[in-house]
Amino acid sequence: MALEQSLASLSLAITSDSNALDTKTLIFKPKTGKTATPIPILLFALHQTSTPSNLIAKIANVKEPRLAKDDLIQDFFKTTSKEISIANISNDLKDKIKILLDLNVIKAANENKNLKLSTQSSVAVLSAKSIVDYLKSLEIELIEVDFNDQSEISQQAEKSEKSEKQEKVKESAKLDDAKLIGITVDKEKDFSTWYTQVVTKGEMLDYYDVSGCYILRPNSYLVWETIQDWFNTRIKKLGVKNAYFPMFVSQRVLEKEKDHIEGFAPEVAWVTRAGNSELDEHIAIRPTSETVMYPYYAKWIRSHRDLPLKLNQWNSVVRWEFKHPQPFLRTREFLWQEGHTAHLTKEAAEEEVLQILDFYAGVYEELLAVPVVKGKKTENEKFAGGDWTSTVEGFIASTGRGIQGGTSHHLGQNFSKMFNISVENPNGSDDRIFAYQNSWGLSTRVIGVMIMTHSDNKGLVLPPRVAQYQCVIIPVGVTSKTSDDDREKIKNGVLDIEHKLEKLGVRVTSDLRDTYNPGWKFADWELKGVPFRIEFGPKDLASQQVTVVRRNDNKKYTVGLSQLDEIPKLLDIMHDDLYRKAKKDFDDHRVLVEEWKDFVPTLNKKNVILSPWCGSNECEDDIKDSSAKKDDGEDEEEDEKAPSMGAKSLCIPFEQPDLKEGQKCVKCGEKAVTYCMFGRSY
Amino acid sequence: MALEQSLASLSLAITSDSNALDTKTLIFKPKTGKTATPIPILLFALHQTSTPSNLIAKIANVKEPRLAKDDLIQDFFKTTSKEISIANISNDLKDKIKILLDLNVIKAANENKNLKLSTQSSVAVLSAKSIVDYLKSLEIELIEVDFNDQSEISQQAEKSEKSEKQEKVKESAKLDDAKLIGITVDKEKDFSTWYTQVVTKGEMLDYYDVSGCYILRPNSYLVWETIQDWFNTRIKKLGVKNAYFPMFVSQRVLEKEKDHIEGFAPEVAWVTRAGNSELDEHIAIRPTSETVMYPYYAKWIRSHRDLPLKLNQWNSVVRWEFKHPQPFLRTREFLWQEGHTAHLTKEAAEEEVLQILDFYAGVYEELLAVPVVKGKKTENEKFAGGDWTSTVEGFIASTGRGIQGGTSHHLGQNFSKMFNISVENPNGSDDRIFAYQNSWGLSTRVIGVMIMTHSDNKGLVLPPRVAQYQCVIIPVGVTSKTSDDDREKIKNGVLDIEHKLEKLGVRVTSDLRDTYNPGWKFADWELKGVPFRIEFGPKDLASQQVTVVRRNDNKKYTVGLSQLDEIPKLLDIMHDDLYRKAKKDFDDHRVLVEEWKDFVPTLNKKNVILSPWCGSNECEDDIKDSSAKKDDGEDEEEDEKAPSMGAKSLCIPFEQPDLKEGQKCVKCGEKAVTYCMFGRSY
Repeated sequence: MALEQSLASLSLAITSDSNALDTKTLIFKPKTGKTATPIPILLFALHQTSTPSNLIAKIANVKEPRLAKDDLIQDFFKTTSKEISIANISNDLKDKIKILLDLNVIKAANENKNLKLSTQSSVAVLSAKSIVDYLKSLEIELIEVDFNDQSEISQQAEKSEKSEKQEKVKESAKLDDAKLIGITVDKEKDFSTWYTQVVTKGEMLDYYDVSGCYILRPNSYLVWETIQDWFNTRIKKLGVKNAYFPMFVSQRVLEKEKDHIEGFAPEVAWVTRAGNSELDEHIAIRPTSETVMYPYYAKWIRSHRDLPLKLNQWNSVVRWEFKHPQPFLRTREFLWQEGHTAHLTKEAAEEEVLQILDFYAGVYEELLAVPVVKGKKTENEKFAGGDWTSTVEGFIASTGRGIQGGTSHHLGQNFSKMFNISVENPNGSDDRIFAYQNSWGLSTRVIGVMIMTHSDNKGLVLPPRVAQYQCVIIPVGVTSKTSDDDREKIKNGVLDIEHKLEKLGVRVTSDLRDTYNPGWKFADWELKGVPFRIEFGPKDLASQQVTVVRRNDNKKYTVGLSQLDEIPKLLDIMHDDLYRKAKKDFDDHRVLVEEWKDFVPTLNKKNVILSPWCGSNECEDDIKDSSAKKDDGEDEEEDEKAPSMGAKSLCIPFEQPDLKEGQKCVKCGEKAVTYCMFGRSY
Repeated sequence: MALEQSLASLSLAITSDSNALDTKTLIFKPKTGKTATPIPILLFALHQTSTPSNLIAKIANVKEPRLAKDDLIQDFFKTTSKEISIANISNDLKDKIKILLDLNVIKAANENKNLKLSTQSSVAVLSAKSIVDYLKSLEIELIEVDFNDQSEISQQAEKSEKSEKQEKVKESAKLDDAKLIGITVDKEKDFSTWYTQVVTKGEMLDYYDVSGCYILRPNSYLVWETIQDWFNTRIKKLGVKNAYFPMFVSQRVLEKEKDHIEGFAPEVAWVTRAGNSELDEHIAIRPTSETVMYPYYAKWIRSHRDLPLKLNQWNSVVRWEFKHPQPFLRTREFLWQEGHTAHLTKEAAEEEVLQILDFYAGVYEELLAVPVVKGKKTENEKFAGGDWTSTVEGFIASTGRGIQGGTSHHLGQNFSKMFNISVENPNGSDDRIFAYQNSWGLSTRVIGVMIMTHSDNKGLVLPPRVAQYQCVIIPVGVTSKTSDDDREKIKNGVLDIEHKLEKLGVRVTSDLRDTYNPGWKFADWELKGVPFRIEFGPKDLASQQVTVVRRNDNKKYTVGLSQLDEIPKLLDIMHDDLYRKAKKDFDDHRVLVEEWKDFVPTLNKKNVILSPWCGSNECEDDIKDSSAKKDDGEDEEEDEKAPSMGAKSLCIPFEQPDLKEGQKCVKCGEKAVTYCMFGRSY
């Protein structure tokens, strides 16, 4: 029975309203004993309401609700998941199901709004009031839920170090030797809690009272400053200059490039008021600056002599995502650089795209000791409005997920035609040449990737080139028997070493706090990720040496006081070792798969996959759908234990295995044209 | 007759409404021939409507309207400026006055709102509709004005290089030898137009389509980057670390410190919507970060060992000012750094306040070649919520106005008590110690001060240490007779010089464009402010030398090709000369005044004033009032020709003339306690 007819049979008036709010009807099956009859939960909510399964579990007081499979839906509702709607409910289901009703629907009813109900085959518009009245008229248990509020509660909980989630963390994930001040869960067993602990206890970041925004503390900001210096030096040599464009964009300008804005529109934050004055025109906060900058490029570029124009800015952008935020990886405001260049020729532009991509790889590999794979995005995954997108892709071994590391786009002439960025042809012909443009961006997400890659159950591990302090000097072996004279000598020795290392350009500090013992200090500085602990005690004093202990693997070195200039070299060696280990992890988990039967099992072993592929968008979508766990609930991405999502194409790596003669696509069996890297991803 | 009575006599209903909108009633006298009878203009507008006198001139088609003096108001309206209201109008004034009615008042009438009419002695609330009806019922000429729209028009006009304003610029201000591409007006005669031209044509900045926001182009952003490097190096040595706090503030947090927020509240920009979703809680964009940061200081500072905590951030803040914006000096979004530190003792905190102030002076004097006077703000002018404010004060010789250059505040324990930033007393007593805090900020305003100080009628003059390019090499003496071989030699010579200078660390470029002659290039680079023009032609080639021409005074040097390492030294000399000249200007225009009779005349000669002062707030207010030109119109600050404003206290300079025994305050005659610097100011 089509939706319209069902509704008609329910005597609900059908109206037409282009402002009607989208809704969703979802069926969840809670985890139940194998022999018990499940009580499905029907959720009716506004489409925009975020309804993560962990909240549903909490509200309906059930275990691990997952989106129900079609056979269950057929049993209870006599239809499929694609055709389910509230029209499929009747009093026959009394005591057999529960209904969760989004409070936003009730709000909509109070505001006399209309709702749009869609199934795969039908669409109907009804007044929210009639729907609410109808649902309440049923004899089925109905729970009204304020998801907004619950979501707040969930975030609040997350903020607290003693959150319910952490308290409930599986006993098995708890670390046996966990210290109170340190990390209490195992990276490999409860990655999500581990990550929250590492970023906060390692003092990289703090949670903030505006959801999705975080404080970058000095330890993480120094990483960013180091990247800025490194990257600035290189782009300036290419002739790129830094500038600053306003954070505000007028609606007219923001919406000028339709394809482009479509992806950002739902996430744009709008300023509508200043003091007590309503603004006549609402003003957006930039989600990115193409449309902010390009009208001025059109103004400034008047002749081919004004090309190339290469500007970069370091700023923050705002994308008001409604998905679950995650420190560094998905935040509503984030810091980045965005480069925007205009060239006379396609060749010059395309050359730059790859130069910048090399710099991005350099940031990861040379500063953060994180390996990446360079490649090109598929048509599906490229930047909307551009011609092609190059990318550096990283890998988080603990979760087996890929992560996009930074992208450099060739925009072709799409924007230049839209904004009329054009010059006379210098070769004298009459036609105007539209500029060839690039844009490229790298964000503070890199810091998250770095943390996830290197850090461990003792806390942060900072790669030496970006560590706030590369060495901490800790006096050891001082006991109650140590004479005042010797204490003084140790202390002076420590300060002397600090001074000498500073002169060598090492970022160093000493921990002379006398209220803590060395063991406590060791743990404290390990938590904060300082690459080298330098121990100095009476024995070291006697033999004129220090003991250096590497954060990542506890490796020890003995260095003579007259050979302190070895320390910078040892820091470089640590960098190389961190990189080598991470590279091995990535390489070991990037698995060549040629047959579809091996695809999902390989994926489920926390790998990304390199497969021969036909290059078609539809096949790519099919791979994604077919590799998703269909019986999982609505995915809430922070939940590392439920990698329900399908494998996206991550990139077509520049470095390709040889494609065999007649090699077929891993999925559709058509002729393969390239190897493509697929994986679950952040 | 009191206002209420007048209104009652007009049969207008008096109501009470706390939401009533404030209004203003102003009388303007246009400039008229000495013997002609003036036709005053009565303006009735919402208080919040900006009604600058230049717009009134345009709309009412009159010359230079100024706020009328009391004798004129008495003549026409039988009352004083402090008691004037629309109740003083009657049909007796038909053909004798004009009425300008703010369209916002009519809007308020249409929305059934009430208005508040205030005079010094009375307040009344009436419906907007009854007021509009009343005004329209009179037989007096009434002009309805959309000031918002007019203001837009005015800003649009300003943006255009061929703005009406510029076209109307007094003939006398036009430069005789103005080139089309260059500056067309005289700095000393039409400073405001000159400044707009210099910042835009010098490519420091461009106007933007959101009012009050500007694009910082590479030439100005490099100044900022240079300042960042210089300042970072110094504060990091003090133990200050950089961090980044979110740009968003929740309402609750923003409004925590009442005294503090009071000053910012009318200018706060509010985000109320994301995509199509209204936000449940409106979120402010930071106008400054005290209330953003200090809750976290309270969290992070748990023991005296966590002190001092010294954080700084480089960010942008938003203050939605409704006054006329001015590039660099008053912009709705601006870049700055804000340092926030917490100390265990008052002494440590106060020491830092002055260290930072020295750095601010250093930015001006060592980088921008701009002299400043260091001092302390009076109680009236200090940062609200702090204990005391130190400041560096600059001076714009062309307008004779002072300008606040940067402030470093000692906040005492005001915020730490509010936010509970406290530690146990390390000396063991039971009481908790509240931290002693500082905050200090320097903004991109410095760039405006630099431009105003050094630039001239040929365009920008950039101090060498912050110039994007310190030298431009221009080939000269190449004529149609020059052989190809010689052309090639000149070109190679230019590139060779460029290469050598680059190696010496000089920021240098060459202008080899063959479509422009050297004269055109000279003017172009002068406009852009490049410190040194290096000319290289056949004669230079023959004698193995270059000719160096200094931007600021055309001074020429001949430098041998083997002595190019002289150039960095010559750049330093130029810096010193720029500073010396600006310092002489400031010193010559900082005049010691001991008697009130000399005060205003000295001020009117474009001076700031150093006067003995009693130290009382009331006396300071009196000085300001008494030095304002009472017959001037509503001040629109961009109008340099009408310095109607009174003299504010700029600072109490740290460097003081000796106060004579029994010296009296310049204004009130009480005992002077200090010398204070007063001036009109930006």
